[in-house]
Amino acid sequence: MKHQEAALEYARSNHPQFLDELKEFIHIPSVSTDPAAKADMQHAAEWVAERLGRLGMENVTIFPTKGHPLVYGDYLHAGEDKPVLLIYGHYDVQPAEPLELWRTPAFEATQIGENLYGRGASDMKGQITASLQAIEALVKTGKLPVNVKFMIEGEEEIGSPNLEDFIKEHADLLSCDFTVNPDTGMIAADVPTITYGLRGLAYFELRVYGPAQDLHSGLFGGTVHNPAQVLCELIAGMHDDQGRVALPGYYDSVLPLETEERAELARLPMDAQFFKSQTGVAKLYGEAGYTPIERVGARPTLEVNGLLSGFTGEGSKTVLPSYAMAKISMRLVPNQKPDEVHQQLLRYLKEHAPDTIRWEVTKMAGGQASITDRNIPGVVALSQALEETFGTRPVFRREGGSVPVTAQIQEILGAESVLTGFGLPDDNLHAPNEKLHLPTYFRGIEALVRFFCILGE
Amino acid sequence: MKHQEAALEYARSNHPQFLDELKEFIHIPSVSTDPAAKADMQHAAEWVAERLGRLGMENVTIFPTKGHPLVYGDYLHAGEDKPVLLIYGHYDVQPAEPLELWRTPAFEATQIGENLYGRGASDMKGQITASLQAIEALVKTGKLPVNVKFMIEGEEEIGSPNLEDFIKEHADLLSCDFTVNPDTGMIAADVPTITYGLRGLAYFELRVYGPAQDLHSGLFGGTVHNPAQVLCELIAGMHDDQGRVALPGYYDSVLPLETEERAELARLPMDAQFFKSQTGVAKLYGEAGYTPIERVGARPTLEVNGLLSGFTGEGSKTVLPSYAMAKISMRLVPNQKPDEVHQQLLRYLKEHAPDTIRWEVTKMAGGQASITDRNIPGVVALSQALEETFGTRPVFRREGGSVPVTAQIQEILGAESVLTGFGLPDDNLHAPNEKLHLPTYFRGIEALVRFFCILGE
Repeated sequence: MKHQEAALEYARSNHPQFLDELKEFIHIPSVSTDPAAKADMQHAAEWVAERLGRLGMENVTIFPTKGHPLVYGDYLHAGEDKPVLLIYGHYDVQPAEPLELWRTPAFEATQIGENLYGRGASDMKGQITASLQAIEALVKTGKLPVNVKFMIEGEEEIGSPNLEDFIKEHADLLSCDFTVNPDTGMIAADVPTITYGLRGLAYFELRVYGPAQDLHSGLFGGTVHNPAQVLCELIAGMHDDQGRVALPGYYDSVLPLETEERAELARLPMDAQFFKSQTGVAKLYGEAGYTPIERVGARPTLEVNGLLSGFTGEGSKTVLPSYAMAKISMRLVPNQKPDEVHQQLLRYLKEHAPDTIRWEVTKMAGGQASITDRNIPGVVALSQALEETFGTRPVFRREGGSVPVTAQIQEILGAESVLTGFGLPDDNLHAPNEKLHLPTYFRGIEALVRFFCILGE
Repeated sequence: MKHQEAALEYARSNHPQFLDELKEFIHIPSVSTDPAAKADMQHAAEWVAERLGRLGMENVTIFPTKGHPLVYGDYLHAGEDKPVLLIYGHYDVQPAEPLELWRTPAFEATQIGENLYGRGASDMKGQITASLQAIEALVKTGKLPVNVKFMIEGEEEIGSPNLEDFIKEHADLLSCDFTVNPDTGMIAADVPTITYGLRGLAYFELRVYGPAQDLHSGLFGGTVHNPAQVLCELIAGMHDDQGRVALPGYYDSVLPLETEERAELARLPMDAQFFKSQTGVAKLYGEAGYTPIERVGARPTLEVNGLLSGFTGEGSKTVLPSYAMAKISMRLVPNQKPDEVHQQLLRYLKEHAPDTIRWEVTKMAGGQASITDRNIPGVVALSQALEETFGTRPVFRREGGSVPVTAQIQEILGAESVLTGFGLPDDNLHAPNEKLHLPTYFRGIEALVRFFCILGE
């Protein structure tokens, strides 16, 4: 515990230096979607690699990919009895546009009061430097108590197109006891949060074809089945009147919520009122028998993401469309599989589509849900570290979105992920005026120091 | 009958002159939607006025409107005991584009075999000259046996925006026993056709509003009612499983089909196979208990003309849309009223729309259906004239489309319309290579000669 105290003391007395380091990182406009930012992407990768080297990481490598490079580095001298952690992060950021909505320059990292404004401050350059700085505090005051591997990619904001292949090709290099991914944030500044479940995704395009060409609705209305009507009828049948998804077998493989888990989710400060104010609706909707936070995190859904048919301009045109299209996606929970859901959708359509039209389904994207056992040492250690740091027991959250890397690591490396982070809901991720709450940031560094120490005990 | 025979003889011996006159009319590119065609529109109106004057019409006037001018002329000296006919027509034509698909110049009127090719040849310059030439044949060989008024507008192809006001403002001038509108054509070259029913229209835009802005379907899917889903559910409920429109009271004011009328419609050569080949669908759809031709002509329908919501581009975007829109229109039959249908739609939405969303309906367009009593003298006379000319009893058709002027004349002037014409289904109306079948055209002139004579007996 002497080492931990010394490291915490080091961290506390180095706030200005830590802040300068983060600002330097933010200054690099590493926008992965911008073809003109290639040099900046390389610069950001080199910046990370240089930091890893300075902390005593070995095998530091900038791996080229078909897209932006990925940075690796490891320290494996804590002892064979100590766990190996794979720390995941991404050095790329979202574009800053629309620039005119920023109150400070997007890539200048401006401190106003308790917040540091700049693109990537919270998502997730600040989370990467928090990890680096926690390790720095431990390294400067002793020996790193755990084995760590860093895998920092540059393509998260464009869907990580090359990450799965990289993990497959470097499975040995990346082998670990578990992964730490500090990209999921906190519910509030005083509510430390561990995300242990993420939903998966299955995304489809459904097309319904009717007459050979658009028809005059006067001359032919009453003789053919309107494909836009059929599409609506098919979509309407995909939910029952209890808000349940009505695809055959849809819930068969769904992992039920345990009583204890429901009690845990109920602790989250995300009640009906929270979701109403976040979404601006007067009344919520969803599967009967579950709370909003359960529905969004632990229950699968089916959403219409887009509809298109016929005439959609101003005014009126009496067309009977030849074709109608819907984008339909399902958010999946453990243990649903995207391919099974695909089959369920096809089965539903075979059973319900009338023979007056033709239909076609295209699979657009898919990824499995993931869930982390809350009793693995990584989660237990993090929970303890967060409680000691924030003075309150962390909440356990299942999140509605997808972090594909989590399922990929689970599948390829067989490792579970500990998902946390020190970003806040009002950090304006992917929006103008992204910021990082600095008191939370510095507490995060301390929590990570404790986390590494507990794991190394 | 001596006059009729002389007039028919005149008509038969003047085919070349009649054809030249029609060609001259087609040469004027009177495209009403083209702002650059203003002079051509005026030219076409003057051309019509000049012809009316030459036939001995009186009070020939080119009435200016807010848009293109309207031509009027009358002959009211047949005797007070003779009926007054209002002959309706339009001298404007559709644009000729795409020009590269024409095999002959669109505005040059080229004869190939039995057909005359050119924009407006069938729709409806040829129908106007047929009327003028039938009158010419009668005038050149005696005294016109009926009283006639001509009302030839220049805005039919752009929706007749100024016609209703004109009729209202000139109701006395236009007063008549019935109207003749030769703009509805024949079913086939050997099937003379009288259209006695036209459907009306009620066109709406339905918008469903959900969350205040587009949401991330992962973070919020399961908490709010997706407006695209709600829109589909609402649309799905608008038909029952018998293909009937399920708006409350929708069929209450629908004029039932009489047994004799059904037998008449069954004579039309438009069976299921006809509609399949016209639309390219493998199986037809519609209200149970009615044949396709009954459904399209004499039964009301509800069509989705357009759908739009969320993400509709290539690929996938996991948006939970804030808004969804449908264009929905009803084809109406006697005695449905557009305003009543509007109320039925609102009532349906009030009863079925969930309180998890907001909705809004905008009325876009509307017009009443019309039906002509098949026993009025005009229809009886036309039927006899067509049978004598074509050697076969004409078929009586109710058409699915709308001709707003028919309902306007019925409402404002209290006059019924006799709808006929000598265009054929393969005349390529509104398309490249529009043509007129000349043998049918010349028979049409003869039929009109007989029609006027029968009415004047």
